[in-house]
Amino acid sequence: MNEAQNPPAPAVTRTLARYIVESNPDDIPDAVVHEARRALLHWIGCSLGGCRHEATETALAAFGEFSGAREATVIGRPERVDLLLAALLNGISADVLGFSDTHLKTVIHPGGVVGPAILGLAERAPISGRDFLHAFLLGIEVACRAGLSVYPWHYARGWHITGTAGTFGAAAAAGKLLGLDEQRMTWALGIAATQAAGLREMFGSMCKSLHGGRAAQNGLSAASLAQKGFTSSEQAIEAPRGFANVLGESPDLTALIRGLGTDFEVLQNTYKPFPCGVVIHPVIDGCVTLKAAHAFNAADIRRIALRVNPLVLELCGRKTPATTSQSKLSVYHSAAAATIAGRMTEQEYAMTCVADPAVVGLREKVEAVADAAIREDEADVVIEFADGKTLHHHVDFVIGSTRRPMSDADIEIKFRGLAAPVLPAETVEQLIAACWAITDQKEASILARLGAAQG
Amino acid sequence: MNEAQNPPAPAVTRTLARYIVESNPDDIPDAVVHEARRALLHWIGCSLGGCRHEATETALAAFGEFSGAREATVIGRPERVDLLLAALLNGISADVLGFSDTHLKTVIHPGGVVGPAILGLAERAPISGRDFLHAFLLGIEVACRAGLSVYPWHYARGWHITGTAGTFGAAAAAGKLLGLDEQRMTWALGIAATQAAGLREMFGSMCKSLHGGRAAQNGLSAASLAQKGFTSSEQAIEAPRGFANVLGESPDLTALIRGLGTDFEVLQNTYKPFPCGVVIHPVIDGCVTLKAAHAFNAADIRRIALRVNPLVLELCGRKTPATTSQSKLSVYHSAAAATIAGRMTEQEYAMTCVADPAVVGLREKVEAVADAAIREDEADVVIEFADGKTLHHHVDFVIGSTRRPMSDADIEIKFRGLAAPVLPAETVEQLIAACWAITDQKEASILARLGAAQG
Repeated sequence: MNEAQNPPAPAVTRTLARYIVESNPDDIPDAVVHEARRALLHWIGCSLGGCRHEATETALAAFGEFSGAREATVIGRPERVDLLLAALLNGISADVLGFSDTHLKTVIHPGGVVGPAILGLAERAPISGRDFLHAFLLGIEVACRAGLSVYPWHYARGWHITGTAGTFGAAAAAGKLLGLDEQRMTWALGIAATQAAGLREMFGSMCKSLHGGRAAQNGLSAASLAQKGFTSSEQAIEAPRGFANVLGESPDLTALIRGLGTDFEVLQNTYKPFPCGVVIHPVIDGCVTLKAAHAFNAADIRRIALRVNPLVLELCGRKTPATTSQSKLSVYHSAAAATIAGRMTEQEYAMTCVADPAVVGLREKVEAVADAAIREDEADVVIEFADGKTLHHHVDFVIGSTRRPMSDADIEIKFRGLAAPVLPAETVEQLIAACWAITDQKEASILARLGAAQG
Repeated sequence: MNEAQNPPAPAVTRTLARYIVESNPDDIPDAVVHEARRALLHWIGCSLGGCRHEATETALAAFGEFSGAREATVIGRPERVDLLLAALLNGISADVLGFSDTHLKTVIHPGGVVGPAILGLAERAPISGRDFLHAFLLGIEVACRAGLSVYPWHYARGWHITGTAGTFGAAAAAGKLLGLDEQRMTWALGIAATQAAGLREMFGSMCKSLHGGRAAQNGLSAASLAQKGFTSSEQAIEAPRGFANVLGESPDLTALIRGLGTDFEVLQNTYKPFPCGVVIHPVIDGCVTLKAAHAFNAADIRRIALRVNPLVLELCGRKTPATTSQSKLSVYHSAAAATIAGRMTEQEYAMTCVADPAVVGLREKVEAVADAAIREDEADVVIEFADGKTLHHHVDFVIGSTRRPMSDADIEIKFRGLAAPVLPAETVEQLIAACWAITDQKEASILARLGAAQG
């Protein structure tokens, strides 16, 4: 074969496996540990928000009857299921609101795949919070690096990178907690590689969230198989017929190992403040900022004038949304609802708000102009009142970007919004506290215990 | 997007779904039904042969503890597991000896994926043998057509086509038995599409067989999800970011629907007579034929002279195999052992035979010459004796090819060889009879009942 004449590819699969096996919690800088805490809290919030979505409900209806020993929590729900099914369901719920953490360099949503793969393991055997967070962090690292090796060709081709690259991260984290040695970790990554799947064509259907769920479940499966000695190729990522060359084109294999142990991809992780298409976020940011800074009555507004990146109107230019899904793709609805409510949560995308006459009325007064000089993380918002007064806010870097990340308090606020319909307020605060103090927890299973709904 | 400017792709996903839903057992010609019976018998034989392989054992060890309701048989074994796990294990055992049926146009092994996806369904609820075989046949049809749409680019790229295309076949068969309507069958095919996976890099490791197992399991999962209303794209195969364009290049979408209902791909299915690399088969065929036709003592042989296609020495030129796996890639061992035993089964690749001094001695006397004039399905075998006598046989079309298919009796012989170490002789004969008479069986579950080992 021609491939044999090329210089041999670096042994990235084994190198990555060795790193995962040898990494120690003491090796991780504090700032990295803290970012992992944020991702952990954020993921559990997303799963709480998505746990009653029909995609989660339907998957539970389809697979619940096949569940084995009911050792694991489905976050936000009273049902308990086996570890593999819990990984699937918690992965679906994490993704389904489209509200996940995002590694901007690859658009992977790592936390919502890696967390679900390992939560059940912490319920089956005692695992310290420190070890749990360390495995979570390593999983995020591996998922993002697997993605970096094939991005952007991979995503442009049509692969849902959270489903594909996420599988590696889930396998790495689960394998770490199962105590795999280097050989078995190498196999686990290989078993992950050969199950990597998920097509972007599924966006807009429940299958989009199945990808994250399957990535979590298949990653846990891969680690479980490897633990028992199930073999795979040991060059699963770099071989001519391995992951990076089959699902990628001219892959950057060094991205898998460059700076391993010193550069941490979790530091590039971001959190979406609003549960809608990310391109609308700058506009919402502007509207919410003006509402917070000024006392006004929305009924007095004559016009809201937006200048936005052209992509906003291309992707989210729907003037009159008829459903919640459509409203999340409407910059007009988003601007109107955010200006009235002073926030943008699931409630502002619920049909009660989408059909609210006050919102509908204001939506008609929103005018948006595409301006190629406006970046995707930028927006200009002017509110004109009937009396001639105007308010102006220019969002230079949108909240939730790496330039202007959500603060810990912002993530808490988002968490509370997602958790409130599901858990008692007291439990919500305990869960937030448990995540911030995860490295001091004797047993990481506290997250599952607090995250489960009472039956 | 550019894609939008191309003529719209034919709605093959929905067309295929409609065909599966509307197809009736009465629509299928007798010859096609009979070929499906052969594939059924052959698959169960392969699973019996592979049920104690370490890949099957290891997967059971990893997942057995997560099994739900133990409603389904693991063929050849006493354990019962849930339907999804049974599909996985029966799919692994079907593939693991490398002895599966082969749709030569795509090199898919369809029977060993489709059968495992549906056997458990017949154990959970009464399904007539006629309906069961019909679903099995439809599954083979869909798997092969999915493969045809992307072959050969897909396989050359590095995809293990049994793992990818097989998922569609498993979903189709399971969906048929679950009684999905057109909408839900369309979703089932979409859910299958977005789980299609498996890399050829895994060949030589246990993961190779995981692909068939996952295809069976994920196909059954897809049908189960769709039954409950889990949605997917409705253009999952043909969309610009669907299966055929992401895992294929310039796919032939019409292959999915051309001649649907009149042309049946199962008629292109073949069965391997010997459990080794297919390129060695003509040589074995020649040696077995000479042994059957002539009484001689192998100790009197001076030389075995082979003329073979060059690929034989390229792929299977190993002179001195040290393991069973290596012996299956040795034309020298295969010729020697087949000439002594007059057959070539797993026993002739067991270490007892590989290390047998008589076999080792004869192996040294085998000489193979590559000859580009010899086709891949052809071989020339000359046995020279110490007394100067020679025997000659020229294999023009190897047994097991579409030109010279294995007879029903040949498949029975293969089945008995695979089943004998696992089931009592009487049960083996009952199982063979049950497969031939499957369309008269009131309940298809008889296959599982007879195929289970007593605990």
